[in-house]
Parts: sequence; C-alpha cells; structure tokens
Amino acid sequence: MSESKKWVFSFQEGDGKDKQLLGGKGANLCEMTQIGLNVPSGFVISTEACLAYLEDNNLPENMFNQVKASLELMEQETSRQFGGKNNPLLISVRSGSAMSMPGMMDTILNLGLNKDTIYGLIEQSGDRRFAYDAYRRFIQLFGKVALNVDDEHFDEVFTKIKLDHGAVDDVDLDAETLKEVAEAFLQIVKQQTGHDFPDDPYLQLELAIKAVFGSWNGKRAIDYRREFNISKAQANGTAVNIVAMVFGNLGNDCATGVAFTRNPGTGENRLFGEYLINAQGEDVVAGIRTPKPIDRLQEEMPELHVQLLELRAKLESHYREVQDFEFTIEQGRLYCLQTRNGKMNAVSMVRTSVEMEREGLINKDEALLRINPSYLEQMLYPRIDPSKQNHILAQGLPASPGAAYGQAVFDADRAEQVAKSGTKVILIREETKPEDIHGFFASEGILTSRGGKTSHAAVVARGMGKPCVAGAEGILVDVMTRRAKVGEITIKEGDTISVDGSSGNIYLGQVDMIEADFSTELNTLLGWADEKAQLKVLANADTATDANRALKYGAKGIGLCRTERMFNDVDRLPIVIEMIVAETKEQRQEALDKLLPIQRSDFKSILEVMSPNQVTIRLLDPPIHEFLPNEKQLEQELEELEQLRATVTGLDVLKNSMNLINNSNSKVDRRLPEFVDVQLVEESIEKKYLMLKKVRALYETNPMLGHRGVRLGITFPEIYSMQIRAILEAAADCNSRGVDVKPYIMIPQVCTVKELKYVKDFVTTISADVEKQYGHPVPFKFGSMLEVVRACLKAEDLAKEAEFFSFGTNDLSQATFSFSREDAENKFLPLYNERGILQDNPFEVLDVNGVGKLMTLAVDWGRKTREGMSIGICGEHGGHPKSIKFCHKAGLNYVSCSAPRVPVARLAAAHASLLAEQD
Amino acid sequence: MSESKKWVFSFQEGDGKDKQLLGGKGANLCEMTQIGLNVPSGFVISTEACLAYLEDNNLPENMFNQVKASLELMEQETSRQFGGKNNPLLISVRSGSAMSMPGMMDTILNLGLNKDTIYGLIEQSGDRRFAYDAYRRFIQLFGKVALNVDDEHFDEVFTKIKLDHGAVDDVDLDAETLKEVAEAFLQIVKQQTGHDFPDDPYLQLELAIKAVFGSWNGKRAIDYRREFNISKAQANGTAVNIVAMVFGNLGNDCATGVAFTRNPGTGENRLFGEYLINAQGEDVVAGIRTPKPIDRLQEEMPELHVQLLELRAKLESHYREVQDFEFTIEQGRLYCLQTRNGKMNAVSMVRTSVEMEREGLINKDEALLRINPSYLEQMLYPRIDPSKQNHILAQGLPASPGAAYGQAVFDADRAEQVAKSGTKVILIREETKPEDIHGFFASEGILTSRGGKTSHAAVVARGMGKPCVAGAEGILVDVMTRRAKVGEITIKEGDTISVDGSSGNIYLGQVDMIEADFSTELNTLLGWADEKAQLKVLANADTATDANRALKYGAKGIGLCRTERMFNDVDRLPIVIEMIVAETKEQRQEALDKLLPIQRSDFKSILEVMSPNQVTIRLLDPPIHEFLPNEKQLEQELEELEQLRATVTGLDVLKNSMNLINNSNSKVDRRLPEFVDVQLVEESIEKKYLMLKKVRALYETNPMLGHRGVRLGITFPEIYSMQIRAILEAAADCNSRGVDVKPYIMIPQVCTVKELKYVKDFVTTISADVEKQYGHPVPFKFGSMLEVVRACLKAEDLAKEAEFFSFGTNDLSQATFSFSREDAENKFLPLYNERGILQDNPFEVLDVNGVGKLMTLAVDWGRKTREGMSIGICGEHGGHPKSIKFCHKAGLNYVSCSAPRVPVARLAAAHASLLAEQD
Repeated sequence: MSESKKWVFSFQEGDGKDKQLLGGKGANLCEMTQIGLNVPSGFVISTEACLAYLEDNNLPENMFNQVKASLELMEQETSRQFGGKNNPLLISVRSGSAMSMPGMMDTILNLGLNKDTIYGLIEQSGDRRFAYDAYRRFIQLFGKVALNVDDEHFDEVFTKIKLDHGAVDDVDLDAETLKEVAEAFLQIVKQQTGHDFPDDPYLQLELAIKAVFGSWNGKRAIDYRREFNISKAQANGTAVNIVAMVFGNLGNDCATGVAFTRNPGTGENRLFGEYLINAQGEDVVAGIRTPKPIDRLQEEMPELHVQLLELRAKLESHYREVQDFEFTIEQGRLYCLQTRNGKMNAVSMVRTSVEMEREGLINKDEALLRINPSYLEQMLYPRIDPSKQNHILAQGLPASPGAAYGQAVFDADRAEQVAKSGTKVILIREETKPEDIHGFFASEGILTSRGGKTSHAAVVARGMGKPCVAGAEGILVDVMTRRAKVGEITIKEGDTISVDGSSGNIYLGQVDMIEADFSTELNTLLGWADEKAQLKVLANADTATDANRALKYGAKGIGLCRTERMFNDVDRLPIVIEMIVAETKEQRQEALDKLLPIQRSDFKSILEVMSPNQVTIRLLDPPIHEFLPNEKQLEQELEELEQLRATVTGLDVLKNSMNLINNSNSKVDRRLPEFVDVQLVEESIEKKYLMLKKVRALYETNPMLGHRGVRLGITFPEIYSMQIRAILEAAADCNSRGVDVKPYIMIPQVCTVKELKYVKDFVTTISADVEKQYGHPVPFKFGSMLEVVRACLKAEDLAKEAEFFSFGTNDLSQATFSFSREDAENKFLPLYNERGILQDNPFEVLDVNGVGKLMTLAVDWGRKTREGMSIGICGEHGGHPKSIKFCHKAGLNYVSCSAPRVPVARLAAAHASLLAEQD
Repeated sequence: MSESKKWVFSFQEGDGKDKQLLGGKGANLCEMTQIGLNVPSGFVISTEACLAYLEDNNLPENMFNQVKASLELMEQETSRQFGGKNNPLLISVRSGSAMSMPGMMDTILNLGLNKDTIYGLIEQSGDRRFAYDAYRRFIQLFGKVALNVDDEHFDEVFTKIKLDHGAVDDVDLDAETLKEVAEAFLQIVKQQTGHDFPDDPYLQLELAIKAVFGSWNGKRAIDYRREFNISKAQANGTAVNIVAMVFGNLGNDCATGVAFTRNPGTGENRLFGEYLINAQGEDVVAGIRTPKPIDRLQEEMPELHVQLLELRAKLESHYREVQDFEFTIEQGRLYCLQTRNGKMNAVSMVRTSVEMEREGLINKDEALLRINPSYLEQMLYPRIDPSKQNHILAQGLPASPGAAYGQAVFDADRAEQVAKSGTKVILIREETKPEDIHGFFASEGILTSRGGKTSHAAVVARGMGKPCVAGAEGILVDVMTRRAKVGEITIKEGDTISVDGSSGNIYLGQVDMIEADFSTELNTLLGWADEKAQLKVLANADTATDANRALKYGAKGIGLCRTERMFNDVDRLPIVIEMIVAETKEQRQEALDKLLPIQRSDFKSILEVMSPNQVTIRLLDPPIHEFLPNEKQLEQELEELEQLRATVTGLDVLKNSMNLINNSNSKVDRRLPEFVDVQLVEESIEKKYLMLKKVRALYETNPMLGHRGVRLGITFPEIYSMQIRAILEAAADCNSRGVDVKPYIMIPQVCTVKELKYVKDFVTTISADVEKQYGHPVPFKFGSMLEVVRACLKAEDLAKEAEFFSFGTNDLSQATFSFSREDAENKFLPLYNERGILQDNPFEVLDVNGVGKLMTLAVDWGRKTREGMSIGICGEHGGHPKSIKFCHKAGLNYVSCSAPRVPVARLAAAHASLLAEQD
C-alpha cells in the first residue's frame, strides 16, 4: 500500500455520495456536516480499510496515524481532549456498511473513559451517578465487543451487587454503588483476559476499531447477509464512524428527541415529533418517561425551537423529502445526530408530494416518482386501524383487499335475508359457487376455508371490490349447523367478525377501521400522472355500479366487461340453466329470447355510464358447466330426494291407514308429518336427473383448456348472436337518444383467424339488421382477446379481422407456463419461489422474459398487418406496476384493471413513461 | 371471337398434358393416341367452347364447322360414314372436365342411329336384336339427356311391353319386340316434345354437345362441386369427347375386358385381368356372365394376347406406373379405351416400386415418391381380410391399429389367468387404468366403451402395438356380471370377438385376418429411403421388447423412453404407491431404494438392445396421482369395507352367542359364515382412508397443467435422483462389459432454465459418484423436452444447459391451442373440422402455422446458443408424414415415433428430402 493512501475522512471532507467507501451512516454524517447542520464532530474510517484489515489481519499502514490526526481536529472543534483529565473528549465507535444491516454489527459508546477521565466527566456533567453509570456500561460493552468477555460474567456480579444493596432496578443504585460496579467490572476483565483493562484511550480506540472491522465477519452479520441475499460483490466491508459524544442528559438545558419534518400520518406541513428534557436518546424510545410533543419546546426552550425549525428547513431544502431525524440538545446547543427519509403512509406521501411541488421543492415528475404506485391501494379501501392492537383469530390468504366487519352468515340466501334488514354481514363458506352471487352482493366481505387467490370467491370479490379472505384452512365451516370452528372457538350465525382482505387476518368482533380516502391531493397527483402517461388506463367492470366506481377512480373506459357475470344474478341463472339444459335449438332459443332484453338493458346502462368512452364487452367465456350445480351436490340432493320419495310413498300408505284409524281417534293425525305431494317429488327427481346427466355430459378433464370462449360461440352460435344483438341494440338505443357510446365487441379464447371470421359474420348480419331496425348506423369495433398462445403466434393474420387486441394475460400465462394457476399456487409454486426457480408468482407479476416475449412478438406481428392497431391488456397483470412498466415498453395502448387498482395503474403508467425517458 | 379460334382437337393433335383445355379424359385419349395405342378414332371439343357456350347460350362461331371437319377425319380413319346407311359411323359423346367428377355429367352412346342407319348397324353386326337394343337405348338416353324427356315415360311403356310379352328380364325380349319398343319410344319423344325424334345425325350431335355443355351447370354437377370444395377458378367447364363406337359384342371375334399391367394385390410383374368374349364393357362389370382370367386369352385369341402384352409394355414404358386399362376387341382388332394408374395395396405398391426400379423403368427417387408413406402402416399390422363380408357388431374409435380376435374377458386379472393357458383374449373394459397394465400384456387387443383416442387404453395399446378400439359407446359393459351388451346381443366371458383397431369395427366371432408382412422389398425400399432422408428416425419405446421391435423396424435409436410405464407393472405399482403415500422423506427413500434396482435393470436391457445407438430416457412425467386408484372407487370400497366391519362385528357377537348354543348343538355352526378377522378389516379401512386422503390432497383441477414432470423432480428430488442413478449405473454396467451405450437423460415439462440447472446439479453429483463406484467415466447427454410454450420462448437460455432438445408436440399443441385434447376431441373439435375452422385435428397433424412457427423460432434460438444442437420431436406427430415434412424443413435432426410407425416415418423422411430438392 502506498503511504499516501487515504483511509480516514473527516465529516468535512468525506464525499456524502460515496456510500461504498464511507458506508451509509458515514456518508450521511459527512453530507449533513457539509450542508451546515450541527453534527457532532467526527470522522469516518473507510470500508477499504476494513477489507485491508480483514485480509492482512493488521490495520493498514499509516491508518492509525490518520486517525490520530483526525482526532486532533475533533479536539480542536470540541475544545476537549481525548484522554484528558479535564474536559475529556469521549467518542462513539460505530459500524456502518454500504448496505443497511441494522443492529448486525457492533457499536461502542463513551470510549475514552478511564480511571482518570472519569473525573473529567464528573466535572463536565456535574453528575457522579451519571458518570459512573456511563463508565460501568463502557467497561462492559468494551469488554464484550473488543475483549471478548462474556456478558454473563458482568451480569452475575451486577446482579449480586444489586442483591447486596437490596435494589430491584438499576435506577435504585446510587453513584457509590455504580462506582463499586465499575471497579468490579475492571476486575472481571482482568480475570478473564489476564490483562488490566486498557486505560490508554488510543489503545481503546485501536481495539475498538479492530473489533468493529471484525464484526463484519461475525456470525450475526454473515447470517444476515445470507438471509437477505446480499451478494459478495455488494458487501464490501464496514466503515467505522468516530463521533464525539454529546449528552442530552447533562441537566435541564439538555434534551433529546426525534422528529419528522412533516406529519408522517397526515402529511401536514408542520414539524412533528417528541422530546425529553435531560434525557438520552434511548429514553425517548424506551418509553419509561413520556416524551412531550415537539410544540412544547417552543415554551420550554424557545430559542432552540427556532433552531429546530431552521434545521427542518435546511433538511427539506437539501433532501427534498420528508426527513425523520434525531437531535440532541447539550447544554443549550442543538446537534443533529441522524436523518433519513421519513417512512409515511400513502395519504401523507400523496399530500406531501403535491404540497412540495407547490412549494417549489420538487417538480411534478419527482412528485410522481417518489410514490410507489402499489402504495396507493391502501387509500382506496377501508383498512384495519394499525394503531390498535387486535387479536388475530385465524389467517387465510389475502384474496381481495380491504377490511370489513359484520355478522357471520353461512349461506347466500341467509346473507341476503339478514342484509335486507340493514345488518352488515360477512358470508362464510367452505368455498363459493356462481349461485352464491346474491350473497356476495349482500355481504360486506367474504371468508372461505378453501380455495386460493383465484378461487371463485376471490375473483368475484375482487371484481366487486369487496374484501375477501380465502382458504383460511384453520376454520372448519359447518353450513348445516351454521357454525364455524377455529380451534376451541365457535363462530355462530350472528356473531360479529372482522376480515382484512389485505392481510388475510380474521378477528372476532368489530375491529376499528379507517375509511378509504380519495383525497383532492390524490386527484391532483393522478391528474399529473395522466399527463405524463402514454398508456391509457381502463377498468374491468361488469355492471353499471362497477363502471361508476371505475369512472370515479379515473378509468378512461372499460377494457373488460365480462358478460357471464351478468348471467350469475339470481334472477337470471335459472334462465341460463334453462338455456344450457335445452335439448333442442328451439328450447335454447326460447331461453335466449328471455335473456336478450336483460342483457340489452345491462349493456345500455354500462354504455351510458361510460359515454363517450369505449366499453369493451367480452362475449361469453367460461365453460357453460360453470353455471350448473356441481356433480357431488346433485348426487347428494338426489339421494335425499329418493329417500324422501320412499318416505313419502310409505307415509302415503301409512296416512291412508291412519286415516282409517283417525276416524275413531283424531289425535293421531297431528303426529303425522306434513303431507308431501309424491307427484312433486317425482318431478323434482326427474329434473335433477336431467341436470345430473347434463353435468356429466359437460364434464371436462381440463376445464381451463376446455369448451369455452369462442368455441362455445361456434358450437352454440345462437348464444353469441343473442349477445351481439343485445350489445348493438343497446348502442343503437343510446345513439337514438343522442348518447355517444362506443361498444367494442371482444371475442375470447380465439386461436385461429377462422374463428374470428365465423363470429364476424354474425356481427355483420346482426348489425345490418339493427341498423335497419333503428334507422341509423351503429358504430362499434370488433376485436380479439390474445389469451391463447396460438393467437399470439397468428397475430398477423388475426389483425386482418380484428380491429383491436387485448392480451388476457391470466390465461396466456397459464398456457405459456403450462401451469394451472389454481393447482400451481397450492402445490409447487411456493416451493418454486422458495428455491429461487421463479423469482415471482407469474400470475401476480407478468413474466416479462417468457410471456412478455410472446406478447412483444404478437404486437409486432399484429401491427405489421394493421398499423397502429390498438392493443391492450386486461388480465390481472394490468393493474400491477412492474407489468405496466413492461406494457409501456411493449408499446401497448392501454391497460385495464379492476376499479380499485385504476389509481395504482395511472401512477404506474406515469412511472413507466418517466423511467423510460430517464433510460 | 376470332374466326381462327380452335375449338376442336383431334386425338392426334390435342396436347395430352393440357387437362385444363381438353379435360382429363380428352387429354388422356390424345396422349394414348399419340403414343401409338390403338384408341378408337375421335376428337375433343375444348372446355373453352363450353364456357363460351354457357356464356352466350350459343355454340361459339365456327365450332360446329370444326366438329364436322373432325368427323370427316374419323370417317376416313374408320372407313365408316356418319349417318351412312351402309357401314354407319356411330359415336359416343362424353363429358370430361379437368377435375375428375365421375358420373356427374352426361354421356350419350351410339349417337348417329336413326331409321336408316339402324339397317347399316344390323348389317355390320349381323345381329338384329343387338341393333334394336342399341337403338331403343339410344332413343331413351338421347331423349332424356338432350330433349329432357322424363325417364318414367319410357320406363312405363317398356314395362308394359314386357308384361304384354310375358318377359321378366330385358334379355327375354327378342329383336322384334325391341323394334316395337324403339318405335314406341320415338312416339313418346314426339308426344313429349311436340317434335319428331331428330333423325339428322348432325342435329343429334349438335343437341348432344349442347346437352353435355349444359350438364356442367346441372344440379348434380353443382352439388358435387360444392361438396368437394371445387372452387370456381378450378372448375372451368367440361370438354366434350367424341369417340367412335367400338363393339366387343359383334360376334366371337369380339371381346372386352379390364386389366392391370401388374397384379394389384401382390405386385407380381404379370398381366392381370379378366375378359368376356362377345360382350360389352358393362357386362364385365355387371357380373351377369363370369369373366375369364386374362391368361385364357392366350388360348382363345393367341394373336390378340400377344397384342395385349405389347399394349401392356407400351403403357408401362410410357406411364411408368402400373396401369389399370380397359380394352375392347372388335372383330379381331384390339382397342384400348381408357387407362389410368392402378389402385394397389401397400404390398403391391412396394413390390412394384422396387421391381420397376430394377427394371430401369423408374429411378429410386421415383420409386420412393410413388408410395404414400401412411400406406405402409397397413403392412405392419394384421388386418381384417377385406375380401370377406363380415357383419359389424358395433363401432368405436380406431384407437390403435391392427386387428385381433380372442375370448372376451372383463378384467385384467382374468385376462392374465385365461391367457396363461394359451387362450387368446380380448380385454373389454369401460375404461382402463394403470393397474390394468398386466391385462394389456396378456391380451391380443383392447376394447373400451369409454374414452377417446388419447384415453389410457388407446395410448398404452399404441405403445405396445396392440389393436385397440376405444369409446365404443354402443357397448354396455358390466364388469360385475362379466357381460357386455350391444342392443339385444350379449357378449359373455369366453365368447370370441374380433376387433379392428384400424377401423374401429367390432365383430362377433373370429373374423379372417391377413398377417402383417415386412417383406424383403419393403426392406430394400426403406434402405433407399434412409439413404435419401436427412431426418433420422428413432422410436418411442419403453421396454426391451419394444426396443427390439423398433430395431426390427429400422429405428436408429430411441427418442423417447417413458420411465413411468415401468412403474405401472403389477410388481412395481405397489412400491410406487408406497413411495407416493410416504409421509416422510425416509419412508419415501425406502420405497425408492426398492425401485432403484428394478429401474436399473430396465434401463440396462433397453440400452443393450439399442447399443450403440442413443436411448433417450425421459424422467418421470405424469402427475403422481395417476398411479393411485380413483377417488370414487376408493369411496365405494371404503363403504363396502365399513359394511363388512359392521357385519363382522355383528357376526362376532353372534358367533359368540352361537358358540354357546353350539355346545349343545353342533349343526348350527355350519350355518355361520366364515369368520373374518375384525383386526384385518380395521387395518384395511385405515389404509384405504390414508390413500383416500392422499388422492384428495393430490387432486388437480387441470391435471394437464399440473404438478408433473420436472415440477415433481424439484419437489421430490429423491425421485429424479433415483432415476438418474438407475440410468447412469445401468450405462456404467454396460460399459464395464464392453457394451457401447448412449443414454440421453431428458427432462420433461421444463419451462425455465433454472429447473434444468436444478436437475443438472443432481446429475453432476450422481455421475461423479457412479464414475467413482465403477472406476471409469460414464458418457451420457443431458437435454430438455420442449413441450411447454415458455421453454420454446426461452430456448436460447435453455440451450446453455441442455445438450439436446426434443419437442413434445402433444403437450405443446395442447398449450398452444389451449385445447385439452381429451375434452376437445369429444366436444368441439369434430364441429371445428366440419365447419372448416380447422382443416385437421391438430393432435394428429402438426399445426405448422401455429405450433410449427413456435418450433421454428425455438430451433433458431436454441442453435444460436449451441450451434448445430441436436433437436428432435417425440410427440405422436413424429410418425405423421405431413408433420415429418415440416420437421425436415424446420431443420430438426430426428423424429421419434411408435415402432409400427417407424417404416412410415422413414419413407416420409425420404419424401421430405426429395420434395425439398424439387422445391
């Protein structure tokens, strides 16, 4: 090593940006010093010195000389002397690496104390007890960290002395006793190490520096780096920070506190924090004394309060972020010990962003970029008040965000019944089925004991924006007795419970909640976002209510309206079932004729709400067996009915004979059960058998890859025809009333251009018909989902027929990975994430390298045929910031997501544009 | 139209290649004439004339003059006169379009007959009856075709005259009566048309030509073109062929016959055919008189026999294909009326190809190209003798080709039992399960009443090369009573049935079969194919037996050895189940330790058989629940066991009390059922419950996309480790004995490079271990299936770890289309084919435009990383000629298919090379 190598940097000279060299804390201290904050005097020994030491097991040449020189500077600045009997300079020795590793390495306080300097400290502080307390603590900490003496030796003696003095707490010990402790501790060190405790402060310092360097390779630090995947390259040793001790506890002209430059809860532009007079930093944290709100300082130390406001201004104007800082007042002098960006909730992030922009502190781009888009979501749902302690009864999967409470009910009918009286209810089921849909409408939240994040319950609840906890396996649901058991605890119908779909937690009783908050500032911010974003944000919405909400959240149209959701309504499902079980085309048409006006009115209201924006309506997608009851349930019902028949038939006979008896004794009659019509039972059995037959005929081994989407449209053209007519008539009707609407007809599960052509033929015929009927043209667009791999591969051909594309990345990801989401998330995906085979769950975060590659190809191919073709995404990924970034790069025109994610997506879209500009 | 336009072409001048202009038949007649065959004199009126006529509804200018000129030429050639009283020239007027449309348009024979020329015909033939018969036929045909007189008018009169003369058949009528018929027919024409029957032969001809032209737009022809998708562009009208009539029935120096230049059944190089003396062509076909074999002509007309052999030689040397031709001998003169390529079976195609090459008629390329590769398959399976008439009992899907007969058995155990005694059996089941595998081994063929072409039965049977008819829904199988019902007919155990897996037909009793025939000629031909082919053909084979068969069929290695098939053997399945239900890693390891030596010995024998060629072994692929019994069955068994327990417990009590009674009366004891151990029942119940629990835990919504392949290898690394060890130890053992083997370890269901890396780590560790154990290196290759879309997209990365790729196009097609094969083939695929949305079933014919596009990209990407990387295909498409053509184009190195398709694939691979050369 050359002699001129610089290992040590005073806070005045260190480069505040060079965390690699100075560690995070060291760089921060340098920066604070250099922007004129009153930081205690000190210097940094570089991480390079650490690495050099670890390699040679020797401090690098000349390093300690540089330390000594820096110490001299400190002595000048503080007018104190290191090792001086009078007015001694005491210092802290702290680790600090480039990556934050809180608490993983060692720190020594009050270094420089010894048999002589203790008197200086007594004089300085005028407090013997304080001085000896500091001394005995220093001996133990130094002994442990620098000399490897086990804590237990010190603890044993300390406990004994406390006992001898009849003291319960440390504070019960007086100065003399603490002196006794210090002396005993010095003895321990001698016994354990075979040497006297080092009194030479320079030797103390040398040993302390080596100990801190060494702690980099301590077990704790190594474990931490492994746990958090900090690679060797990233982890380049620790710096050592030497800082003059300042004391907030040397009298009533002293204080210590922590503060935020603005309120981290509300974002209010006002200093926020707490302090304690005559106290050390740890006292504020420990909570033994109750700290005072920062405003009180104005009365207690008005001059210092002014300094604190100046400090705040300096911090914000320099860091241009809300700062969370620590300060100490030592005998009337304000020191800033540390500062960092304040952790804030979404509300305060949004408010401070907007206000800081107005104050000219930051520009709009910065205002947008400082907020993690995902963070916004918490503003849009009620949430459990985090400041309250609540006992968690059980946990499930966080399947649809938000929190709610209500009375437990165990079936959909009951939910509807109870909710009608204005009572809030939570629907609890093992799992839900389409026929439970009215229960969803009636409930505040959903709780299931089975199924994952894509179970029926989860998907429907997300679509409605209702909280859902799914797959809470610890809960045993017994629908028959209307009870659920969690261990020893039983939830009965009517018991109040709370669910938190953001965390998956379930609570007994009503838990305090914070309401959603779509503030003016958020609107302002999202307005800026829209100006920056290139991607339009549309919403997935299936009803006029959903559409209204989406509009409120700023959606620029509807990217996915799932027509099948409309089929699940309690008044429609029977007609849908009628359509499915129809044996002839005529029977099916009859059912469809009933559905037509219903669908038309659905579409009319959605189109009107969204006028004049696009409403993309996807024709029927799921396999039709999803609308039917499940096989096992039917079998069971049939069994019961057959038993009933047997009983009824038996009873009938019995009743007849009873009647004979009754003639003589009328009391017997009352003991007979209600008479059930055999005929009715027979009919019911026959109906159920027909249904069972249909259910079995429709059974599919792999329903994900089954008879659905356009495949249904081709095998049952009358279903798609009805839907197309409903859409076009709805649009024509709106147009007739001067309402400008834009229906986009979207075909799901397309895999070949001929499928599109086939359906387009219906559209052409029907639209001509509707135009004739209404006497004016009906503008619409015709497009295709890209959710089948082959559709992506054939995008160039598909674009000949389709005027727009929409990637359905849920299905596309399943097909690209050959993962069934439902199965994968319960079976091997967690292990895949754990073993690092997949970084993310591809159903939550779009797989840019695989699925994304295919999408990019499809976009290119599609636009080769149809230049500038409108292409979007309507899978769940459409609301995920990382995926939105990809969509921007891939040149999509829009993303579509559930209403509550619209704000997230708007901000993410702006981020994507801004980050692309910066690239 | 210019006056010089040529509408009419004599047989001497027409271009034999120009079917568009002259129609198929016309061009053929010209070609035959010009190569010196004695074709009756004649000419062709072009299709252009037809189109011109249809457009203007007028014969084009000058056309009829050209016709007259050509007629004069005919008169010269035949020394007869059109309309001449003496020696009249009679002609036929036939349609003939470019596309073959057999029977769809009109033909008129004996045109030129009238009140005068009839006498000439009588004189020419010396047969009044013949002449009047010809006359009355002509009047009716001309009346119908050219004058639109309904057949029924003629038929009515004809029937009446027959009645009057007490005649049953036409032949019972004498010349006078036929004359009477002719006269009556002339009257009918007059009555129906209001005009006399046209006696002017030129007028007859003009009307006939117009009628033939007009028939192009007749209903029959239009329907035909629609049915066979003949587009407007392809269908450019019909030519009209005018040919001099020649008669094979003018006396005993006349004859008519049909012949093949070689035997179409055996391929023998010898004239093959039949003839009748003094007969017309239709007599040979009609079968009223029994024709004589062609050899007899040598005795009957030795000179003409020589001429016939000369004709044969001319035909073959010109057409260089076996010809199927018609001839007529008119008064000692041989005419060739028609020739076309002979339809032959595979055996004769192969033999004639090889022999014609040896004779120098064709070269090897031509020999190869003239055989449709798919055709070869029929040579490799026994088949139902097509010459026998058999009553079809029922039909199912042709799930695995070949035919077999045997005694019906209804479960696998019984199959094994009965087969042991040497009896041939056919296993009949509703559907089969892995535990039936020993039944497959024991049976000649499999018949199921449920499931499609990819059902377990179908796949396993194809793998074993055993015939299978699947999904024969007309058959009700009742395993309990060991019977199957087809309508009223019952098949009992032991009844003989025959199944034809090539057609799906099922027969009662033993049906005659033709044995498979792998002839010397086939070997020669396939040898030539191998020389030409660039694609290597490997086989899918799971056992040493399969491997041996593959070798016999010329496979150059094994492209897919499915290790799970080995797990299904009756002695292994219990261990596999033990492995699956294991609760701890140790229990699982115990089971795996038992499987290791079994798998090792499996691999050893396959590797040895294939030495020194590659054996590609795919590690465990299917979801493990496939090895377990199904849920319903288990539930049922449990129910029965519980009943048994109840009974047993009851009996136990009963028995105890009975014992008391028994002491006094020993006869009661005999009435008690056998004592069943309650303990045993309890244990059995517990075991079944455990199994049921496991089955339910392993349940998957979409098993196709489930927890399988490498996903299993990663979640249960000990399974893959066992398999890798078994492979490498087997190879090491072979090497130790000087046997050169090439194991290729192949990982299924890969979707990311990290999966490959994960497994490769095992391989590296285990191979080092095995090398140490055996003391010498163990060469092997490590590769990946490409059957997941994402794997194709990431081929560039995958190629870093994989030394070879193999496309699994079964799964890849499912994922690319998002079609579940099992569901699609039963639900919407047939309709998709019917409506022309998909041309082919993508699971039979590789979808070149979609799946193929992805494959081509993957090949490029993979070889970007690893130049010249070996890439093959091992899905079922690997044996399909159309798909093989694609594989050749895509630059694959090999295809792998089931053993019986290896010859097909070898020929197809040669075709692919040859056709690519021609491109």
